[in-house]
Amino acid sequence: MTTVLKLGGSVITDKATPETVDDDALDRAVGAIADADVSRLLLVHGAGSFGHHYAEKHGVTPTDGSHDAVGVWEIHDSMRRLNDEVVGRLQSAGVPALPVHPLSAGARAADSTLSLASDTTATMLAEGFVPVLHGDVIAHADAGATIISGDEVVAHLARGLDADRVGLCSTVDGVYGDDGDVVSEITDFGDVADALGGSDATDVTGGMAAKVRALLELGAPASIFGPDALSGFLAGRSVGTVVDGR
Amino acid sequence: MTTVLKLGGSVITDKATPETVDDDALDRAVGAIADADVSRLLLVHGAGSFGHHYAEKHGVTPTDGSHDAVGVWEIHDSMRRLNDEVVGRLQSAGVPALPVHPLSAGARAADSTLSLASDTTATMLAEGFVPVLHGDVIAHADAGATIISGDEVVAHLARGLDADRVGLCSTVDGVYGDDGDVVSEITDFGDVADALGGSDATDVTGGMAAKVRALLELGAPASIFGPDALSGFLAGRSVGTVVDGR
Repeated sequence: MTTVLKLGGSVITDKATPETVDDDALDRAVGAIADADVSRLLLVHGAGSFGHHYAEKHGVTPTDGSHDAVGVWEIHDSMRRLNDEVVGRLQSAGVPALPVHPLSAGARAADSTLSLASDTTATMLAEGFVPVLHGDVIAHADAGATIISGDEVVAHLARGLDADRVGLCSTVDGVYGDDGDVVSEITDFGDVADALGGSDATDVTGGMAAKVRALLELGAPASIFGPDALSGFLAGRSVGTVVDGR
Repeated sequence: MTTVLKLGGSVITDKATPETVDDDALDRAVGAIADADVSRLLLVHGAGSFGHHYAEKHGVTPTDGSHDAVGVWEIHDSMRRLNDEVVGRLQSAGVPALPVHPLSAGARAADSTLSLASDTTATMLAEGFVPVLHGDVIAHADAGATIISGDEVVAHLARGLDADRVGLCSTVDGVYGDDGDVVSEITDFGDVADALGGSDATDVTGGMAAKVRALLELGAPASIFGPDALSGFLAGRSVGTVVDGR
């Protein structure tokens, strides 16, 4: 049983203040993970108020790359500071966390196909460690280095490790339907097309509609839930919205 | 033309003082690299006075592993501090260096077979970056995490990237023969067996005899030389002892 859990950047950082961890929120999430009884757990966290500033400063996006090593390192180093904070607190709480940095672990081909050392994460999981990955910069053929989002890391590793469960802990309690309530299950985009702006809607924000579409392709059930539901998710319960396109 | 260059830990650190960079020696090496005209260069550095202390403290060797994440991270973090120093100075000198940490990039199977994300290094090299790897801890099936030496990283990547030249910048000027002079070329262990203690000698120190044997198997010419010969090596000259078992 392999579980991939993403802690959203908005959940664990104060997005209004550059490079600031939300101490209480991160400690609550770490506490829920430390208290859980999960055998093979892989964590990914987003950037929140880390990384983004430097990515903007250097004009680096998931498609627009940079060959400026100083800029690439500045973005990476910011994400690494947040990762150090997450790994350190997990270890202090007794979770055998180890960092895995996408910049070291993978690359993109010119057609954007991603490779991301699955040997590293699979071996760590088998040995009882909890690998902690994050959004990062990554070498990209013909583009220098581009951004890889935490969501992309989650999708790639959920497939690569044949994950049984995927959890996305975000600042919302799930996907809201037309009636204003959280939809408990989505098995087809049509289930929520109207509520998310219609199946023809252009999702310029890369927001919830794009996220749901991506999760429907994942090959494993993925739950979208808020911080209060993290313990329930780790206990194996259905929380928030379960997106399952299988 | 791909060049793999190892900067020995004894060259760039003060081995007598824990976690201390040899400022002058590192700056000289960085200057030689910045001044060189080498198109595809990959660097590896050893541990010197970093890492070893923590490896000993936690009883971790290339074969004796640990499942203690706190200990593993302590060893890794020490090596990362040295790597940050090397990458930072290279960038300041205009070299487009980027860090690649073996703990993130690879793993060992139970039979010790190593995988080490060659996509990362190959893509960085193709994009004009200079990947900087180092001795590290690495996840190891059935053992937790074990030490991977800088020399092992060099041997693995020299093969994986089909390197044309390998350089080992150490504190000695090369391999010394019976007459006390540096041997210019070794194509067979018999060339230096007597000087290195005989072909039957047990190399308990893992010293020069073991190094020469490993380099003879490398599939590329490897030069062992001292810091003063680094510029010459990068300029394409034969320096120190060239070991070539092809």
